[in-house]
Amino acid sequence: MNITPTLDRQQFLETLDTLAQFGATSNQGINRTAFSPTDLQARAWLVEQMEQAGLHVRTDPAGSTIGLYPGEQANLPPLALGSHTDTVPNGGRFDGALGVLAGLACVRALHRAGLRLQHPVEVINFAAEEATTPGGEFGSRAMAGVLPPETLHQLAWDGRPMTAHLEAAGLNPAEVFAARRAHGSLAAYLELHIEQGGVLESEGARIGVVEGIVGLRSYAVTFQGYANHAGTTPMDRRQDALLPAAAYIPAVNRIAVAHGIVGTVGELHLQPNASNVIPGRVNLVAEIRGLDEAVLDRAEAELAHTAHELGASFEVLSREPSVKSDERLTAALAEACRDLKLPYRRMSSGAGHDAASIAHIAPQAMLFVPSRNGVSHSPDEYTAPDSCVAGAEVLLAALLRLDNTLD
Amino acid sequence: MNITPTLDRQQFLETLDTLAQFGATSNQGINRTAFSPTDLQARAWLVEQMEQAGLHVRTDPAGSTIGLYPGEQANLPPLALGSHTDTVPNGGRFDGALGVLAGLACVRALHRAGLRLQHPVEVINFAAEEATTPGGEFGSRAMAGVLPPETLHQLAWDGRPMTAHLEAAGLNPAEVFAARRAHGSLAAYLELHIEQGGVLESEGARIGVVEGIVGLRSYAVTFQGYANHAGTTPMDRRQDALLPAAAYIPAVNRIAVAHGIVGTVGELHLQPNASNVIPGRVNLVAEIRGLDEAVLDRAEAELAHTAHELGASFEVLSREPSVKSDERLTAALAEACRDLKLPYRRMSSGAGHDAASIAHIAPQAMLFVPSRNGVSHSPDEYTAPDSCVAGAEVLLAALLRLDNTLD
Repeated sequence: MNITPTLDRQQFLETLDTLAQFGATSNQGINRTAFSPTDLQARAWLVEQMEQAGLHVRTDPAGSTIGLYPGEQANLPPLALGSHTDTVPNGGRFDGALGVLAGLACVRALHRAGLRLQHPVEVINFAAEEATTPGGEFGSRAMAGVLPPETLHQLAWDGRPMTAHLEAAGLNPAEVFAARRAHGSLAAYLELHIEQGGVLESEGARIGVVEGIVGLRSYAVTFQGYANHAGTTPMDRRQDALLPAAAYIPAVNRIAVAHGIVGTVGELHLQPNASNVIPGRVNLVAEIRGLDEAVLDRAEAELAHTAHELGASFEVLSREPSVKSDERLTAALAEACRDLKLPYRRMSSGAGHDAASIAHIAPQAMLFVPSRNGVSHSPDEYTAPDSCVAGAEVLLAALLRLDNTLD
Repeated sequence: MNITPTLDRQQFLETLDTLAQFGATSNQGINRTAFSPTDLQARAWLVEQMEQAGLHVRTDPAGSTIGLYPGEQANLPPLALGSHTDTVPNGGRFDGALGVLAGLACVRALHRAGLRLQHPVEVINFAAEEATTPGGEFGSRAMAGVLPPETLHQLAWDGRPMTAHLEAAGLNPAEVFAARRAHGSLAAYLELHIEQGGVLESEGARIGVVEGIVGLRSYAVTFQGYANHAGTTPMDRRQDALLPAAAYIPAVNRIAVAHGIVGTVGELHLQPNASNVIPGRVNLVAEIRGLDEAVLDRAEAELAHTAHELGASFEVLSREPSVKSDERLTAALAEACRDLKLPYRRMSSGAGHDAASIAHIAPQAMLFVPSRNGVSHSPDEYTAPDSCVAGAEVLLAALLRLDNTLD
């Protein structure tokens, strides 16, 4: 390769601005919930943009948009770049959108330079990543063949069944599972995303090379007491369910810190929750997230043990395993950062992403750019233009490296 | 007095059964919410019963029923016995009803014996004691002249304004405050009530001689943190509002125990209360109750200090002062128990009662009988027939004593 493709910074940032007009709210937020009219309009605009960049575009049966930029060697599986353009209700303009538009900008750079890589390159705009649909990551799970059939019969965030959303988007629910692609059908998958946390910002790193997406386990912990009159029941005759629950909350924190993971009690319900009644029952949800399943196992055992010591019941609500990044891909991303002289750090992703689904069928890795104040899923979501460009340039440099080193 | 009046046990227990038919629900509960048709029907039945017992009955402008049994000395103020026959929705058959029917049974005993006391005797069935009306104790507060005028413009438990309830009961809202009686217009007020707690039952005492109704103070304590993603926010960068709140809950318990009062956190709200979001704010209500205002002052100071130490705001929601019983009256009740060989204990009332209102215009005291399992405001509310009779007999014996010793 004698010609080095370069990213058109101006054009890339303009596409971010243009996409942000689809579903823009009066408070600087974005409403592009999956399969809504604004989501579909944005996707249609993006299809046009892809076609102008020399991509051959198709929409798969789950609604994901796949643009293919041919390679020199048609028999090689594609290198894929992607993310999603749907948002949570009143979300921000960077979550998902950045990764798709950066992928598009990379291919545009190749196209403008008249370059083809050895591998074909795909830009994928996955359908319905946000958890507005049951479990989220709808398009990428369908593509990876890991979407549970019952998902179609569950309700979306607005109370309407998934089938209704799919039909409104012109999709046939019966065909969704035909979106599945075989293991090995992609050479690699790279996803640029905003961090959605404050680690990069506070440490002054420009890029996060993601070593994996954390496993998430959640538990229902129930403390049973006896509801009684707060005035007439002496202190020594109470069975106040809130007292052991209050002891459990700092224990979750302590166990998480001790194991170097995160742990949260975010949801808690008192019954009857009246100021003049001793709490008769407390239900809380504790969750832990970490990259190392063995560490999660140990933390889980301590959480269960502590719950039982406090007389509570402990029920596993979910165990989503962690997803490790492919080391060849993280190495390529790290080398790209070094080449571009961008300070980076290796880190894990505390949130789920389409990359976690695609890991079932292809090597994958992600890279993060800083989120101001760590905010996401909010109109306040902001990533500086220089950070967006830096992320896209690392993506392009890693793509070029992988084209030479993979297979 | 040569003739000793004796209580007709059988007739008294029958009136309890009969009254329990008004508003009886299919699950053994009672629906006689204040000013409802079943409440008015029960009151009308009770007026008949009073008249048969030789009482001259009137209904005051707030809806309370007052039956007067003339005394030998018409210039003496009446000795009053009373309580209320309204219930909470799906309440029990003893709360309130017992005190009114025991008062009636006492006068019946006098009437049957052909006896008049020196004092006139009143049996009062107060209107709307339960907190189905704003603040509760509607009839007794109106009689004592301590009902705030704004009460009429507030909403009852069912969302209808108080004025609508009064008008439906044939009362004129503009006249309610004319129910006020002067200080000293009653020689004494005695109220028999079920304990609504489990102290008597667990200690094997038959009668509780109430030394006072506790003061109640409640506080809004607010912990402000910062809501953030439970996966992407490292443990050392969190402002989790639930952690200091969890430290405050046992402190309320500890402070109450240390001061020999009761203290409860019965109400607690997380924001946003989602399992995958670090709590950004916790609002809780702490309350304490005790008889000694100086003790309550000290406990309140510790609660406020602890809240501030934990970074929370602390706001006083209410301070209802305690109401001490008249010592001549509690002495008469204790002597009556000794005469009747009924084991008794002195105790405080953790719940509010009409007696607390009447304390503004007359000496008052209450006596309690055991509640099975301490349950009240429930279809499961139960006090054994022997306990009901024992309470009524103490009431009668104390009435006879006070007639001789007061004034």
